[in-house]
Amino acid sequence: MSVLIVGSIALDDIKTPVEEHPNLLGGSASYAAVAAAYFSPVNFVGIVGEDFPKEHIELLRSRRIDLEGLQIVPGKTFRWSGEYMWDMNTRETRSVALNVFEHFTPTLPSNYKSTPFVLLANIAPDLQHHVLDQVVKPRFVIADTMDLWINIAKESLIRLLSRIDLLILNDGEARQLTNQTNLVKAAKSILALGPKYVAIKKGEHGCLLFGAGGEFFSCPAYPLEDIHDPTGAGDTFAGGLAGILARESDSETIDFDALRRAVVFGTVLASFNVEAFSLERLKTVDAAQIEDRSRLLRLMSQFEFA
Amino acid sequence: MSVLIVGSIALDDIKTPVEEHPNLLGGSASYAAVAAAYFSPVNFVGIVGEDFPKEHIELLRSRRIDLEGLQIVPGKTFRWSGEYMWDMNTRETRSVALNVFEHFTPTLPSNYKSTPFVLLANIAPDLQHHVLDQVVKPRFVIADTMDLWINIAKESLIRLLSRIDLLILNDGEARQLTNQTNLVKAAKSILALGPKYVAIKKGEHGCLLFGAGGEFFSCPAYPLEDIHDPTGAGDTFAGGLAGILARESDSETIDFDALRRAVVFGTVLASFNVEAFSLERLKTVDAAQIEDRSRLLRLMSQFEFA
Repeated sequence: MSVLIVGSIALDDIKTPVEEHPNLLGGSASYAAVAAAYFSPVNFVGIVGEDFPKEHIELLRSRRIDLEGLQIVPGKTFRWSGEYMWDMNTRETRSVALNVFEHFTPTLPSNYKSTPFVLLANIAPDLQHHVLDQVVKPRFVIADTMDLWINIAKESLIRLLSRIDLLILNDGEARQLTNQTNLVKAAKSILALGPKYVAIKKGEHGCLLFGAGGEFFSCPAYPLEDIHDPTGAGDTFAGGLAGILARESDSETIDFDALRRAVVFGTVLASFNVEAFSLERLKTVDAAQIEDRSRLLRLMSQFEFA
Repeated sequence: MSVLIVGSIALDDIKTPVEEHPNLLGGSASYAAVAAAYFSPVNFVGIVGEDFPKEHIELLRSRRIDLEGLQIVPGKTFRWSGEYMWDMNTRETRSVALNVFEHFTPTLPSNYKSTPFVLLANIAPDLQHHVLDQVVKPRFVIADTMDLWINIAKESLIRLLSRIDLLILNDGEARQLTNQTNLVKAAKSILALGPKYVAIKKGEHGCLLFGAGGEFFSCPAYPLEDIHDPTGAGDTFAGGLAGILARESDSETIDFDALRRAVVFGTVLASFNVEAFSLERLKTVDAAQIEDRSRLLRLMSQFEFA
């Protein structure tokens, strides 16, 4: 089955303690779409300016990513510039230029409207609502978010929660959204607002998945020695998760075991993504590598009683 | 098989954002011994003053804890006072009075010297060396440590690493000891110094176990909604781990799978310990509760591919 992905498309300037690269392909929808397309066809909605490099469009087109929903308009593409600190966990935004993204209205081509899986990648909650207003009976809706929206659009975000199946956010955001320091309590508070599932990402500590029926899954992070650029890890996680869920759901019901597997494959794709800047590693990973790393993730988290 | 446990015995004053309790039974050996005794007989070495309450001695005696190695000497028992911040993760030491602990020499009764399992709970590395100088052909030696010893006795601690099978420390300590921010690299650096295994505790994020043969296990923390007192969680983890390893090793070789299970049971006992102040919860937990929680830990970390 296909996945509809709506989010931001950006040109990023990124600095780490070791390297600095300008003009990289970025944005929540770019990472999510390339990740999801490893598993399922993607219907893609986003906006760029006329300055957007052709090579980036070619990259997306070379995957199973339908670009009818990509708006190319006069003006400049959204730009973001960020710097990672020595531990690669904390980052500072150095500058943001919304450009054409400021007036983005995600309008779905008519043949996108009945896409069964929907991933509302990280954009303003009002825009996520606008997408849901256009889709027809989606089978499963996933929303990603960020601290900015909890700060400036909390009411809209909370209304969104009753319209989705799975919310993805990180540990700091879960605490901020619920005023609960304990993540188990934070997850319960979020589930009480509507979604069937919530996935709380903890970076190098993995991910916790909670179900409204009391289900719980703890997925470790894939152990990496060298992290070159954490940008887009969360978007890649969400995209990989949505893509595999859509693929598996051709034949299966979407139960908690399917969600567990989806979290595992999201984790695996994110682990590749951080190994290089922008989408450089993500776009070269192959099926055998994904398979290998997901098996290793299983090996390293399993145990049997004597 | 029996476990020899050597460490500190203290009277603690503990303050959290919600509660404050004085004169509690504490110290690394107290927590570790009560935890280990759930699984195996314990030979106990430590020191207290004449002020040490009889009820605490009775508690230890009521378990499978041999107290021939407990030194009761004129003077006052080691006292520690600490306060936990709002997130229950960071703590400040308010005061320390070493008292009789200042001149502690861990001397083993002769029938302790061939105890097959040795847990060097958190004390000065020089004292840990002194214990190892007295034991005869131990089957498996575990050492716990803390940031203080990395700061003031790093050379002695590093020498200890070539004499032990498993080092237990937390993530901050692993980074501090190795000057590596990445925990996979930190673990490799530690293993290069001698031990067969290293367990890196990450508090609410679980524990990573690394083997010198490249083995890796990621154990989640047990999800708790209410943490009343984190004191002794690490000591309880080490004690539970040592106790189950000693019990299982009656019949089995000590391989990486045995270590995985030991980390799981250490995690489970630590999860009970933090549910109440001092050893209040730890001393009431029963076999069925330990079994239940270890099964849940397995359920919440397992997944199967479709």
